[in-house]
Amino acid sequence: MKNRNGHIKRQERHIAMHIRSVGLQFHPKPNYIHQFEMALSKFNLFHYQLNAVSCFLNRQLPKSARCLSTVLVPGEASGPSVKTTVPGPKSRQMIADLDKIQFAGSVFYFTDYKNSLGNYVVDADGNSILDVFSQISSLPLGYNHPDMHKVVQDPDNQIAFINRPALGIFPAQGWPEKLTNSLLSVAPKGHTQVNTMACGSCSNENAFKAAFMWYRNKQRGGASISDEENSSCLVNRAPGSTPFTIMSFKGSFHGQTLGCLTTTHSRSIFKLDFPALDWPIASFPRYKYPLEDHVKENEAEDRRCLAEVEEQFEIYNKAGKFVAGVVVEPIQAEGGDVHASPEFFQQLQRITKKNGAALILDEVQTGGGATGKYWCHEHFNLPDPADFVTFSKKMLTGGFYSLPEFRPQQGLKIFNTWMGDPSKVLLLEKVVQVVKRDNLLKLVELSGKKLMDGLKDLSNRFPQHMKNNVRGIGTFCAFDLTSPQKRDEAFFRLQQHGVQSGPCGEQTIRLRPFLVFQPKHADIFLDVLEKVLKEIQTP
Amino acid sequence: MKNRNGHIKRQERHIAMHIRSVGLQFHPKPNYIHQFEMALSKFNLFHYQLNAVSCFLNRQLPKSARCLSTVLVPGEASGPSVKTTVPGPKSRQMIADLDKIQFAGSVFYFTDYKNSLGNYVVDADGNSILDVFSQISSLPLGYNHPDMHKVVQDPDNQIAFINRPALGIFPAQGWPEKLTNSLLSVAPKGHTQVNTMACGSCSNENAFKAAFMWYRNKQRGGASISDEENSSCLVNRAPGSTPFTIMSFKGSFHGQTLGCLTTTHSRSIFKLDFPALDWPIASFPRYKYPLEDHVKENEAEDRRCLAEVEEQFEIYNKAGKFVAGVVVEPIQAEGGDVHASPEFFQQLQRITKKNGAALILDEVQTGGGATGKYWCHEHFNLPDPADFVTFSKKMLTGGFYSLPEFRPQQGLKIFNTWMGDPSKVLLLEKVVQVVKRDNLLKLVELSGKKLMDGLKDLSNRFPQHMKNNVRGIGTFCAFDLTSPQKRDEAFFRLQQHGVQSGPCGEQTIRLRPFLVFQPKHADIFLDVLEKVLKEIQTP
Repeated sequence: MKNRNGHIKRQERHIAMHIRSVGLQFHPKPNYIHQFEMALSKFNLFHYQLNAVSCFLNRQLPKSARCLSTVLVPGEASGPSVKTTVPGPKSRQMIADLDKIQFAGSVFYFTDYKNSLGNYVVDADGNSILDVFSQISSLPLGYNHPDMHKVVQDPDNQIAFINRPALGIFPAQGWPEKLTNSLLSVAPKGHTQVNTMACGSCSNENAFKAAFMWYRNKQRGGASISDEENSSCLVNRAPGSTPFTIMSFKGSFHGQTLGCLTTTHSRSIFKLDFPALDWPIASFPRYKYPLEDHVKENEAEDRRCLAEVEEQFEIYNKAGKFVAGVVVEPIQAEGGDVHASPEFFQQLQRITKKNGAALILDEVQTGGGATGKYWCHEHFNLPDPADFVTFSKKMLTGGFYSLPEFRPQQGLKIFNTWMGDPSKVLLLEKVVQVVKRDNLLKLVELSGKKLMDGLKDLSNRFPQHMKNNVRGIGTFCAFDLTSPQKRDEAFFRLQQHGVQSGPCGEQTIRLRPFLVFQPKHADIFLDVLEKVLKEIQTP
Repeated sequence: MKNRNGHIKRQERHIAMHIRSVGLQFHPKPNYIHQFEMALSKFNLFHYQLNAVSCFLNRQLPKSARCLSTVLVPGEASGPSVKTTVPGPKSRQMIADLDKIQFAGSVFYFTDYKNSLGNYVVDADGNSILDVFSQISSLPLGYNHPDMHKVVQDPDNQIAFINRPALGIFPAQGWPEKLTNSLLSVAPKGHTQVNTMACGSCSNENAFKAAFMWYRNKQRGGASISDEENSSCLVNRAPGSTPFTIMSFKGSFHGQTLGCLTTTHSRSIFKLDFPALDWPIASFPRYKYPLEDHVKENEAEDRRCLAEVEEQFEIYNKAGKFVAGVVVEPIQAEGGDVHASPEFFQQLQRITKKNGAALILDEVQTGGGATGKYWCHEHFNLPDPADFVTFSKKMLTGGFYSLPEFRPQQGLKIFNTWMGDPSKVLLLEKVVQVVKRDNLLKLVELSGKKLMDGLKDLSNRFPQHMKNNVRGIGTFCAFDLTSPQKRDEAFFRLQQHGVQSGPCGEQTIRLRPFLVFQPKHADIFLDVLEKVLKEIQTP
C-alpha cells in the first residue's frame, strides 16, 4: 500500500508539474487520480466497432460527398484505446532522459508517430488517443495521411527536402508556380502577393517591418533617404531608427520573439523578465454569453474597445510614436478563444485606415481551414481586403500575404537566410489539393456543427461544470469550465480517457481537430466529454 | 545594332538592380559587360577533364585519407561550364514571374537543384557553377549528396518529414537519442544542454531571453515572483517587463527580427525605418594587415575595443539598463569577414563574467565545420566554455547550446509551436556521420590552406585590385578588393566565369564553400579569380 501511495504521489507530482508547466493552475487531486487508476483495470472504454465496409463505400461516393464518407484515412482506429495513465511509464522515462539535455517541463508525452494515423495519435506507451489539438493546431490532415506520404516518396520532391536553398537569392526553377498552386490558390480575397517565412513569429515580425517601411515611405513623401538616416540607424538612433509602434490587444498572442512578445498579452509566463517596447494596447471585446441574450451589452462592449483603439491612436500619434499597424487575431486563441463580432472587425478596419495604419490579421492559428474557410476573417465581411494576413501552423510554412502597396522597395529588408522552406510548400500544395478533392472545408462545417450542438447540450446539462459560453466557427471550438481547477481536471481526465484537447486562457478547453475530423469523431469526443463531466470531483 | 545595345542596356540595368538589391554599390559598366558578351561565344572556359579512375581509387583509400581522394561526390562536374550570361534569359524570365507575386529584387538566379551536384550548382539556363557561397553558408555537404538522399528515402525517416510535431509538447520517441547523436555529439567543449529552434534569428532571440531570465533570477535572489510582476509584464511595464539589455558590436549581424536587429549593425539596409531598443554597442577590432607587421597597433586596437565594452557595461548598468548578455560573432561575417584575436575573445569573456553577464557566441555562420572545427570559438582557447553558443545554417536546424545554469525554471518561456523540426535533425545526424567518416574537418583545413596560400599570392601579384588583407580560418576565407566598385565587378565576373562567391561588408568577397570542397576545387577557384583580376576594368 505504501508503494502504491508512493507511486500515486509521484504520478500526481508529475502531472501537476506538467500541467503547471503549460500554465494551468493545477491543484493536485489525489482522489480522482487514485480512483482513475483503480478504475483503469476494470473497464475498457471506447470499443467503437470499425465499420468494415466503409472503405468500400467510400470509393462508391461521388467526390462532392466524400467528406461525408465514414473513412477518410483508411485504417484509422475506430476509437481511443488507453492502457496506461497518460503519460505512461515509457513516456515518463523519456521525459527524464530529455530533461538531462534540456528543460523538458512542457512535454505531455512522447509519441509513436509511426503508428499514429488520421485523427489518432499513439503515445510511447501504446495508448491510442483521439487528437483534437493537432500539434497546437499545426498539422492539417492528421497523422501519416497517405497523400502526404506520396509527396515525400516522390524522388523529384526529395530534391527539395535535401537541398534547402537560400530562397531569397537562389530559388528553384518552378518556384513561382509552386507558390501559385499552394499559397496563392487559397489566398484571402484581394491578395496576390505572398512572402514565405519559417514560423509564425518570423511572419509577424516581418509583417511589422513591412508596415514600418510603408509608413516611413509615406512620411518621406518621395524624398530620398538621407545620409543621416543611414548612419543613425546603424546605432539604433533616430532618424534612421523610427519611433514607430504596432498596436495590439489585451489577451492577444502573436509569438515569442521580442517584437512579437511586445504585442503578446495573453499570459505572464510568456512575458515575465523580458524587455518590451512601449507600444499601444487596447482592450479586446469580452462578450457576455449566450450572445443572443446580450446583444446590447455586447454592442456596447465593441464600442468601448473601439473607443480605446481610437484613444491609443491619438495618444501615441500625438507623442510621435506613430502607430504604423494594428495586429489582431480574428479569434484570440492562446488567450482563451475569445471571439469578437464581424462588426467589431469592420469598424477596426475603418478606424485603422482612417489613422493611416496597416491592419495586420494574425491568422497563424485561425488560418488553414479550421473555421470552414481558409481564413477566419472571411467570415467577417470586411469592406476591404486586410492589409496583411500572416500565417503558419496548418499552412506548414510561415509567411504573410500583403497588398501590393506593402511591397518593399529594396531587397534584403524582408529577408533572412532560408526565407521559409520549399519542402513545406510542396507538402502544402498537396494539402490544398486534398482539401479540395475531399471537400474538407464542407466537412469542417458539418463536424463543427455537430461539435457545437453537442457542446451546447452538455453545457445545458452540466451547468455546475461548464459555463454557458460555448463558442466556435467550424471546428475551431472552445468551452469554459466553471473554474480553472475544474478545467485542469477535465483536461486531465480527457487525456486519461484517450482524448488530447488543448488548454488555453484561464479556464478554457480549445478544440483544434484536424481537417479530417468527421462527425463520427465528434460523437466520440462528446461521449468522452460527457463521461468526464460526470466524473469531475473538483467542487 | 540598336537591338543589341537595347539588350545590353536592359541586361546592365538588370544586373545593377540585382547587385544593388544585395547592397552592393554597383556602377553600371557597359564596357566590361559588353566585352564579356562578345567573348562568351569565342572561348569555352573550364574544360577540366574528369579523372575517370578517381571513383575507383577513392574506394581503395583508407578512411583516414578519404578526404584527400579526388572524388567525394561521385559524378560531380570537373569544372564550371557557362553557356549564357548569369543570370541567363530563363532565370530572368522566372525573376519577372516571381516579381508578380513578391518583390524579387534579391534573386541572383533560379536554380535547377535536380541537376546540381556536389560543389556545382546548375542554374535554370544550364550553367554549371562552382558554388563557394553554399546558400549563404547553409548547406553543409553540397548538392544532392548521396547520403542525404538516403536519409529522405528511408521510410522510417519519412515519418518525421510529414508529421511535424509541436516538439516542446509531443516529441517523438527516440528524440533524446537523436539529439545526442547529432547536436550533442559535436557540442562545444563543456556543453551538455541544447535547445532546437527553426532559424538563426529565433535562436538568438531565445538565447537573449534565456539570458534575461537568468539575470532576473540572480537579481531576485530566490524571492518569489510578485503579483505586480505578473500583472505589469502583461502591459509591457516594469517590474515584470525588465529594462535589461544585450550588448553587441559595431559591424555585427545577428538576424532580422526586431530583437536581433537591435544587435545588428552591419549595414543600414537591414535596419533603416525599423524601431530599435536602446541597447549598448561597442567597437569590434579592425586590424591592420598583414597582421605580423602590425602586432602592436592591433593589440592596442583590442584594448581600445575592450575598454569600450567596460565603459558600456558601466554606463548601462549605472542607468539601470542592466546588461544581461553580450552577443558576438567569432568572425563578423555579414559585416565583411572581420576577424579578432583569440586574446580579444579571452578578455571579452573575462570582462563579461566580471560584470555578471552572459557571453553569447553567435556561431550561426561560423559554426558547422567551415573553420576546420565545428565551432570557430574552439580556435580561441577560451578559459571557460561560452555561456551560449547559437547555431543554424550548416547545422540545418537552428538552436543554441547553453550551460546548465541557463536552463529555464518554467515551461513555455523558451518555446514556440514547432521548436525546430525533427526532420532537420535527422539530416544533421547523417551530416555529422559523413563529416567524421570522410574526415571532412581535416579536408577543410587542407583546402583552406590551399585557398589562403593562393589568395595571398594573388594579393601580392595584383596589389592594384586586391588589398593585402586576405584572412581566413579553414575555408572560411575572405579578401577585399581595393574599392567597392572593383568588388562589384569582381563578383560579377566570377559569376560569369562560373563561380558563385558571396559579397559582404563594403568591398569584401567571402568564400563559404561546402565541407566537400577539395584542394582541386580551390585550384579551379584560384584560376578563375586570377583570370578575373586580369580582366578588371574599373579604375
